[in-house]
Amino acid sequence: MSSFIPKDTQYEAKVKDSFECQQVMKTVGARVLGIMPGQVELEFGYHTKLTQQHGFIHAGIISTVLDSACGYAAFSLMPKDTSVLTIEFKINLLSPAQGEKFIAIGKVKKAGRTITVCVGDLFAVSNNQRKLVATMTGTLMTIPDREDLNS
Amino acid sequence: MSSFIPKDTQYEAKVKDSFECQQVMKTVGARVLGIMPGQVELEFGYHTKLTQQHGFIHAGIISTVLDSACGYAAFSLMPKDTSVLTIEFKINLLSPAQGEKFIAIGKVKKAGRTITVCVGDLFAVSNNQRKLVATMTGTLMTIPDREDLNS
Amino acid sequence: MSSFIPKDTQYEAKVKDSFECQQVMKTVGARVLGIMPGQVELEFGYHTKLTQQHGFIHAGIISTVLDSACGYAAFSLMPKDTSVLTIEFKINLLSPAQGEKFIAIGKVKKAGRTITVCVGDLFAVSNNQRKLVATMTGTLMTIPDREDLNS
Amino acid sequence: MSSFIPKDTQYEAKVKDSFECQQVMKTVGARVLGIMPGQVELEFGYHTKLTQQHGFIHAGIISTVLDSACGYAAFSLMPKDTSVLTIEFKINLLSPAQGEKFIAIGKVKKAGRTITVCVGDLFAVSNNQRKLVATMTGTLMTIPDREDLNS
Repeated sequence: MSSFIPKDTQYEAKVKDSFECQQVMKTVGARVLGIMPGQVELEFGYHTKLTQQHGFIHAGIISTVLDSACGYAAFSLMPKDTSVLTIEFKINLLSPAQGEKFIAIGKVKKAGRTITVCVGDLFAVSNNQRKLVATMTGTLMTIPDREDLNS
Repeated sequence: MSSFIPKDTQYEAKVKDSFECQQVMKTVGARVLGIMPGQVELEFGYHTKLTQQHGFIHAGIISTVLDSACGYAAFSLMPKDTSVLTIEFKINLLSPAQGEKFIAIGKVKKAGRTITVCVGDLFAVSNNQRKLVATMTGTLMTIPDREDLNS
Repeated sequence: MSSFIPKDTQYEAKVKDSFECQQVMKTVGARVLGIMPGQVELEFGYHTKLTQQHGFIHAGIISTVLDSACGYAAFSLMPKDTSVLTIEFKINLLSPAQGEKFIAIGKVKKAGRTITVCVGDLFAVSNNQRKLVATMTGTLMTIPDREDLNS
Repeated sequence: MSSFIPKDTQYEAKVKDSFECQQVMKTVGARVLGIMPGQVELEFGYHTKLTQQHGFIHAGIISTVLDSACGYAAFSLMPKDTSVLTIEFKINLLSPAQGEKFIAIGKVKKAGRTITVCVGDLFAVSNNQRKLVATMTGTLMTIPDREDLNS
């Protein structure tokens, strides 16, 4: 349950549109599960093309989906005519990423004028049971659309 | 120039073998550029399938290749009959990831008995010029092969 | 409300004893508010001796108290005859640290055999209102007491 | 050897002035060793009032001095009439912080218009030998002096 008031009433459409432009989401096989003000959930299935040497999903792929979930959670609260930029993130890998599918939940922890901080958790799902696989904290920046992205 | 003495004389072969088992490296199109004791360099080319909404390489894909570079830098110094596990990493995105190709350099900063800390930089290459795109610090763990990976 | 079962029934006493040995807690003026299995709360008052150039509490002092809160949350779940070691932490500063007093809450997110991951929040309290100032994620290690701390 | 050109010719004086205003530096006993464009070195001696339960310097005190070293390295490159704000940092503790004194070296890795990323290392010095104790990556923000610090 989100307590954030979005500045852009079209927040859901703009997140969906931007997500569609992330080609890497197609490569990973990720799709949007839910968009709320300050919270975005993404899902992807297990596929061997995403694995590291032990057959688990690679930490970087987990990061890819969690970063998008966090970034879009932040973007959902940003004003119209702005873009979102990831400044940095940190991820802890808590359990091997094995399962039928994976759900990433990104949430805004603090939305500032320039800087937004998000937290995200990724769960593995097997036999309808969720297990926590990884947790992320990320720092996102609001960029007015007329500026370049080299800030 | 590395000053580390590898505990496993077969460090180059074991890194190459493990890299070959990372299916995600094929998906990203990454290949090994160099393996030294405590340092691994990887390379991949620009491809739209790896991009975020502005056409740059997605931060998570940068993380994928940097995490493997750091992980294998750590692995190169680990004893025979051990595996490497990423506990956590943090990445700062410094410039948009645009270029013809990208080079990730992972280096061991401190190799302990259980914990190894690595730093990694990723550069974009265009017209033979390198530009720093991202920097990572990662914590890796040495796992004896008989243990499971659930530590 | 904690759902962790402590392995050491004397978890409260051992956390208190160790906290008393942290001389820096006296320097900061911190005291224990509460100890539960997997959760520790600490408190300290505003003092100019702890400030940075704008008169707010320095980020490093916030880190000091949050690291102790997270470390003792982890320690509360560790077996008898072990020590806790901070491997790394990451902190985001969300608001200026101004207030009458500050409360740090450290919680275990995942307790593994060797590695424990904690999250912590620090709140400023003014006129009985809490405001979130900073959030931390930390990685702690369980060290058997006979080992040295150089792992 | 720094290759940065400071935007404010008075960079050394402004760093010194700000450092003098950090009351916590007096509490820790830290002093400025050197200020160059994009690099600041600080030093402090061992004191029991700064220790954790094993008699080593507490990770948070290490963070305090490294954060100031990184923050002032960033500040040295910022334009006149701006302030520096720490957004976040991450620190890895590599060895127990024992020694006669400690030297923190903060360096700018990338100075952007709004965001600066720094790296810092802290060394313990005993018998004139340096040992690496901790390494930090921090994200700093340039704040025009007329803005409040709540961004």
